[in-house]
Amino acid sequence: MASATLLTETTTDRSTPHATVGTAASLAARYCVVRDATEALCQPLVTEDYVVSSMADVSPTKWHLAHTSWFFETFVLAPHLASYQALNPKYAFLFNSYYVQAGERHCRAQRGLVTRPTVAEVHAYRAWVDDAMQRLMRDIADDIAHPAWSLIEIGLHHEQQHQELLVTDIKHVFFTNPMRPAYLAHAVPATPPVPQGWQVLNEGVYEIGYSGAGFHFDNEAPRHRTYVAGTRLAHRLVTNAEYAAFMDDGGYRRPELWLSAGWATVQSQHWQAPLYWEHQQHAWHEFTLAGVHPIDPNAPVVHVSHYEADAFARWAGMRLPTEPEWEVAAREQPLTGRFVDAGRFHPGADDRTGPQQFFGDAWQWTQSAYLAYPGYQPADGALGEYNGKFMSDQWILRGASCATPASHARHTYRNFFPSESRWQFTGIRLAGDLP
Amino acid sequence: MASATLLTETTTDRSTPHATVGTAASLAARYCVVRDATEALCQPLVTEDYVVSSMADVSPTKWHLAHTSWFFETFVLAPHLASYQALNPKYAFLFNSYYVQAGERHCRAQRGLVTRPTVAEVHAYRAWVDDAMQRLMRDIADDIAHPAWSLIEIGLHHEQQHQELLVTDIKHVFFTNPMRPAYLAHAVPATPPVPQGWQVLNEGVYEIGYSGAGFHFDNEAPRHRTYVAGTRLAHRLVTNAEYAAFMDDGGYRRPELWLSAGWATVQSQHWQAPLYWEHQQHAWHEFTLAGVHPIDPNAPVVHVSHYEADAFARWAGMRLPTEPEWEVAAREQPLTGRFVDAGRFHPGADDRTGPQQFFGDAWQWTQSAYLAYPGYQPADGALGEYNGKFMSDQWILRGASCATPASHARHTYRNFFPSESRWQFTGIRLAGDLP
Amino acid sequence: MASATLLTETTTDRSTPHATVGTAASLAARYCVVRDATEALCQPLVTEDYVVSSMADVSPTKWHLAHTSWFFETFVLAPHLASYQALNPKYAFLFNSYYVQAGERHCRAQRGLVTRPTVAEVHAYRAWVDDAMQRLMRDIADDIAHPAWSLIEIGLHHEQQHQELLVTDIKHVFFTNPMRPAYLAHAVPATPPVPQGWQVLNEGVYEIGYSGAGFHFDNEAPRHRTYVAGTRLAHRLVTNAEYAAFMDDGGYRRPELWLSAGWATVQSQHWQAPLYWEHQQHAWHEFTLAGVHPIDPNAPVVHVSHYEADAFARWAGMRLPTEPEWEVAAREQPLTGRFVDAGRFHPGADDRTGPQQFFGDAWQWTQSAYLAYPGYQPADGALGEYNGKFMSDQWILRGASCATPASHARHTYRNFFPSESRWQFTGIRLAGDLP
Amino acid sequence: MASATLLTETTTDRSTPHATVGTAASLAARYCVVRDATEALCQPLVTEDYVVSSMADVSPTKWHLAHTSWFFETFVLAPHLASYQALNPKYAFLFNSYYVQAGERHCRAQRGLVTRPTVAEVHAYRAWVDDAMQRLMRDIADDIAHPAWSLIEIGLHHEQQHQELLVTDIKHVFFTNPMRPAYLAHAVPATPPVPQGWQVLNEGVYEIGYSGAGFHFDNEAPRHRTYVAGTRLAHRLVTNAEYAAFMDDGGYRRPELWLSAGWATVQSQHWQAPLYWEHQQHAWHEFTLAGVHPIDPNAPVVHVSHYEADAFARWAGMRLPTEPEWEVAAREQPLTGRFVDAGRFHPGADDRTGPQQFFGDAWQWTQSAYLAYPGYQPADGALGEYNGKFMSDQWILRGASCATPASHARHTYRNFFPSESRWQFTGIRLAGDLP
Repeated sequence: MASATLLTETTTDRSTPHATVGTAASLAARYCVVRDATEALCQPLVTEDYVVSSMADVSPTKWHLAHTSWFFETFVLAPHLASYQALNPKYAFLFNSYYVQAGERHCRAQRGLVTRPTVAEVHAYRAWVDDAMQRLMRDIADDIAHPAWSLIEIGLHHEQQHQELLVTDIKHVFFTNPMRPAYLAHAVPATPPVPQGWQVLNEGVYEIGYSGAGFHFDNEAPRHRTYVAGTRLAHRLVTNAEYAAFMDDGGYRRPELWLSAGWATVQSQHWQAPLYWEHQQHAWHEFTLAGVHPIDPNAPVVHVSHYEADAFARWAGMRLPTEPEWEVAAREQPLTGRFVDAGRFHPGADDRTGPQQFFGDAWQWTQSAYLAYPGYQPADGALGEYNGKFMSDQWILRGASCATPASHARHTYRNFFPSESRWQFTGIRLAGDLP
Repeated sequence: MASATLLTETTTDRSTPHATVGTAASLAARYCVVRDATEALCQPLVTEDYVVSSMADVSPTKWHLAHTSWFFETFVLAPHLASYQALNPKYAFLFNSYYVQAGERHCRAQRGLVTRPTVAEVHAYRAWVDDAMQRLMRDIADDIAHPAWSLIEIGLHHEQQHQELLVTDIKHVFFTNPMRPAYLAHAVPATPPVPQGWQVLNEGVYEIGYSGAGFHFDNEAPRHRTYVAGTRLAHRLVTNAEYAAFMDDGGYRRPELWLSAGWATVQSQHWQAPLYWEHQQHAWHEFTLAGVHPIDPNAPVVHVSHYEADAFARWAGMRLPTEPEWEVAAREQPLTGRFVDAGRFHPGADDRTGPQQFFGDAWQWTQSAYLAYPGYQPADGALGEYNGKFMSDQWILRGASCATPASHARHTYRNFFPSESRWQFTGIRLAGDLP
Repeated sequence: MASATLLTETTTDRSTPHATVGTAASLAARYCVVRDATEALCQPLVTEDYVVSSMADVSPTKWHLAHTSWFFETFVLAPHLASYQALNPKYAFLFNSYYVQAGERHCRAQRGLVTRPTVAEVHAYRAWVDDAMQRLMRDIADDIAHPAWSLIEIGLHHEQQHQELLVTDIKHVFFTNPMRPAYLAHAVPATPPVPQGWQVLNEGVYEIGYSGAGFHFDNEAPRHRTYVAGTRLAHRLVTNAEYAAFMDDGGYRRPELWLSAGWATVQSQHWQAPLYWEHQQHAWHEFTLAGVHPIDPNAPVVHVSHYEADAFARWAGMRLPTEPEWEVAAREQPLTGRFVDAGRFHPGADDRTGPQQFFGDAWQWTQSAYLAYPGYQPADGALGEYNGKFMSDQWILRGASCATPASHARHTYRNFFPSESRWQFTGIRLAGDLP
Repeated sequence: MASATLLTETTTDRSTPHATVGTAASLAARYCVVRDATEALCQPLVTEDYVVSSMADVSPTKWHLAHTSWFFETFVLAPHLASYQALNPKYAFLFNSYYVQAGERHCRAQRGLVTRPTVAEVHAYRAWVDDAMQRLMRDIADDIAHPAWSLIEIGLHHEQQHQELLVTDIKHVFFTNPMRPAYLAHAVPATPPVPQGWQVLNEGVYEIGYSGAGFHFDNEAPRHRTYVAGTRLAHRLVTNAEYAAFMDDGGYRRPELWLSAGWATVQSQHWQAPLYWEHQQHAWHEFTLAGVHPIDPNAPVVHVSHYEADAFARWAGMRLPTEPEWEVAAREQPLTGRFVDAGRFHPGADDRTGPQQFFGDAWQWTQSAYLAYPGYQPADGALGEYNGKFMSDQWILRGASCATPASHARHTYRNFFPSESRWQFTGIRLAGDLP
């Protein structure tokens, strides 16, 4: 992960307004903001909620809180704060996720079986790390070229990624519970209709990928040329009502609409609707962060796998966009949209017409595999495992979802998940060839 | 389960001193004692500990607390207290274990994924049930023939069974945790040597099984005749030191010592020692309720499967006792021994010579399959599922373990587990044919 | 397996007329008969049929032909014919079944993947072994005390066991094939009704198990005393019509009729009828050795698991017999019945009234687990693995099936299979307590 | 699959000399050649070899023979020869591979369990289909625009694909057999050293994909523009000696060299070398079509998965080529190389220097996912399932292997397999960015 060069004092890159820094002071301030935001997301939870993992993809809240601290401990404090002492030497084993070069790890499948350290002890661990981080950041405040700063920047983006996972994971934990607890106190307001239309991309060679001085993950670079054929992209995401029409038309019963592996999954998993949809009292309902509610017809469909997105597009006579198409289409779009925050949805100013919903509602499946850009170089050492080693059998998703921290969105951001993943807020933007 | 006839006021059956009652008043008093004892067992736990299930056999502490209350609610309150209202109608679904005739059940595999109701809510559920039970018991205090009384008796024995499971389950939960928390504050004191010897049983027709007016489970009856060949049984259980000698002699590497399925399990599970044994610093240690300690050489070996008990016996040139042999040998023995209680082991008065350790150290594997006694009749209705439907592919264990509530032990008690089970306190008493 | 003492010249044991010998000459003659009979069973097969294994329990015909020869090579020729040279040293690896002490073995799961040696080469292997056996038997013809003779006796009984497996396995192979080939050219004739009635056993101590000078497997000995309560056993086996009534009464949809593990199997395996039953054109049909035919109402139901036998008995208000009950009831019965032979069923003279169908139609599930008799001693060396190491988690079946070689049946014979096995010809004889 | 337009009389497309036709007469002649070639490949086999499937990817030889005939029956004869009668109506069920729209199919996992139809019956089925095909081709000989002709063309290419599978599958069947039979009578001659060097591709927009009038599969079209950065490609494939150096350098023990999923596979599958490599007598040997032989140091390494190809390239400081890079580099190369044929390798004239080994030794893994080209249109109906529905979670391989029929190779051919596949002849060509 992550450009190892830091970040000049000012950045002029218009496309990443939230993503970066400036002075050491501002980075230190952002450290507090991001760390506090993680804890704020836990406000609706009780102690029991922090402990369990409802499926292999889901980590316990407690683990997210600890792992993000382990990240700072391992990659920032251990190499750069000579006086640092680990709070508990076993934590290095318990809270390493997948960094083989950072030592032995606890088996992922057992994350949800570990009751100690307790939630209170994990908070104490966070405080311990935060305290050491403050000492370090004070020590190096005047040395903007100190290598720790770029690692801190990475650590904050890493923590923001886990903020999103924390929300999507607890949603799944709650859905697994027949009691169906709610995370948000207030239901999401109904979505007004958004007009459909088509944005045309002309054939040509374009540049995509990150360039500039701001923060970005290693997999977003280098910026490079790519050829895009003439294309059109939908102005907005596919809605629940449109997806329901696909279902009504036998979408889940017609093998000719599906990739072979997708059809096998539909049958083995008995899929009949997106994850979290339930048929109750003769109507489709959706388990949301605010509990079970009737489907909102104008809202973007979410929690569909790549298989479902692909099948829907085929049914609609369209296809999914490629990654370059998406980036080219999105590059002039503002990094605003509907984000969950502080217990509510904050709808962005989307009464506009024209292309929208690029950020903040749902990650958007592309038909591009997650592969290295030409000339890609992973970082050295264990942090080189951040992104590069997952470049097989996954699809690129672009944009940002309602659970993404708003300041974490970026035009060049490359998210990736396997074909069958559904527990993230994942949706569909259609594309098609020009006539 | 369970003789549906109640229990006369006094019992003269010498063999079950703890097991029964007398007056309604004493049963009502025992209700409080047993229910309180369950909660007392939770004293060493923090909230997080109540939530998880570390393997398929293990239920969360929270579930044990709730399920035992559900049992009273379903089988006592619902049919016999007209004014009773369920605290939460979803609990009937969540806390039914395996009673098909009592309605739909939550999938066992998901018990450890349910964070709500919280521990506090489960305690409130217990209080709710206890309050209703007090009302019912007052109402029927003068009607000793009321059918609810025998159901209450069953419910208390059921709750005592879950007290044992609660302890064995939390031990496994703690063992699964690399932090290795301890349940007991104080280590178990070292065991003094117990002299070995052999108790001879003469060939003949014996009666085994329960008879009398006290409580017993349906599978202990009817008392019936059986033929026992001449036999000798060991005075005491196999010790850790003896078991270590088996290991040193290649016990886990010699297929000729094992049943075919046992050898397959040794290989697929990579067994090299009893569950909870760990080799550290050149010596075998054991994870106990009080944490990891060096092996106590004179203590009975525990946490061995039937496969291991059988292989050990074959290595020793002996065999396991049959169920009738064990019951005949044990019938004059006192129901005393080493039991965990209130955070400590209470060693019984076993400086005696002669046969001992029948109750309180370890359940004792027999070479008898768990099958119905001649003339066995399961109870009517859902309670008929208590014991009878498990009569396949399990072995009888006899006695009681250190985790059994002392007042729950009975000479005719039939415990049963499959060949590979190891998470209960299970040990070995040797037997052999007469020369 | 197997009494290591040989067999005196004449046997007076009325109960095992087929099972034994007399002179060395007669044993040598029987060698030819049995070996030829194995090959005769292959007469309906084409080369392709010999190769495959349709499930884990099923071995290829080719393997049966070779393994039975390997048995003679390993246990008779290698130790007792000094001049013997193996035809191919790899065969020892390929054709050992489960004798750990006889060396490394080919993985059972891969038996059906091995195309070479070819069928012709396997026949050549049989001839090679037979030729050496003839030399050995000539050499020791005058030494009736030579230890090879008792091993030869075992080898012949072993081969007869594989004759039965060969038939049941090829039936399953053919059933797995949508082409549904037939093994027998002629359909089994319809069964006339057999009158039902009840045989009463008086309470008392009985002796069961083998005694005498004839051949028997080690697990049939020693003869020993056992207590039998007063019981009644059905005169005949449960019929297809009776079993269909159980099905019509919701037998496969009522959990209260089933053992817990049985009900789980019904659901996971989607059982709705015995193995080989198929519903076609509004009626139940059965895949038989002679192809698919309508159910024969008076014929004994076969290909039911222990779970199904147990559930049927519970539905009928009865139970399965215990092993001692069955042996006591059967001991006066002739070793005759309906056996497949030479491409036909040979119905026995069962127009009799009274107890019948003990041998020749179906193995009969008991409610006794497969355990050692008191004082059981397995044979020394690798042959000690023959029976003893399977004494866990299996049920005793008694009698003999239509696929058993008629001369292989014995009153004390103990067959054993796990609860869910259905591919053998297994049926149901009911028992019940006396009123 | 497959351009539905037929094929003009003459083709000027230099790049596909073998791939196409001209007159109806020449296509009819090629029908005989291709069908005969399939049967010629079976010459080294005995009947038993045709029956089994040694793993999920492997089909029985018998099935390949029948399925290719089913293809003509279903897609050519059924719609276009009115008088055609199926030989056996069950064959449509047994020999459909994956065409959902062509009706129900036999479960793939059971292909290797079906002993009937016999090999002789399958040959009779082939003759039946061939006879009908001859009648049809005579009927339409003068109608070069008849739609059957293009379907016949597809059927022949389909059959050639199965010729390659037949060889790779029987190699795996033989490898699974401890007897290790050989398919080829003569060992492959040792490979002389091939000089290494680098072919430079200049940055720019290139066209790739099929254009022209010859046969091609639907996934090779349309020809389209793509951007290629400056690159260099190795002149030849990675050799066994080079791969052994990777192994000696700890290649299979160093997680930092592997994709995350690749490392998990190395560990779970215990990979230590390419498939078919075995360490014997202190040296690596390889199971070849001609049996086990010492590794040929100069021969291209084959039977490596994409995971291994990727790890090797990372170890070498290089990467795999992209699909466009490979096609651009290969477009001037002759369609010649080392092909297995008629029981021998026919080495091509590769004493040349410069880029070589594009066709005939090994399929060459790329780092491009198998995805649709821009504007891709699958064929209508069931034949649309030929290629398109597999466009997920697979990698592109380019070139042709020694088992590919030489006349089947094409510069634009797109082969595809998942990351872990190793049973095809798959190898490695390195690429790298320009300095």
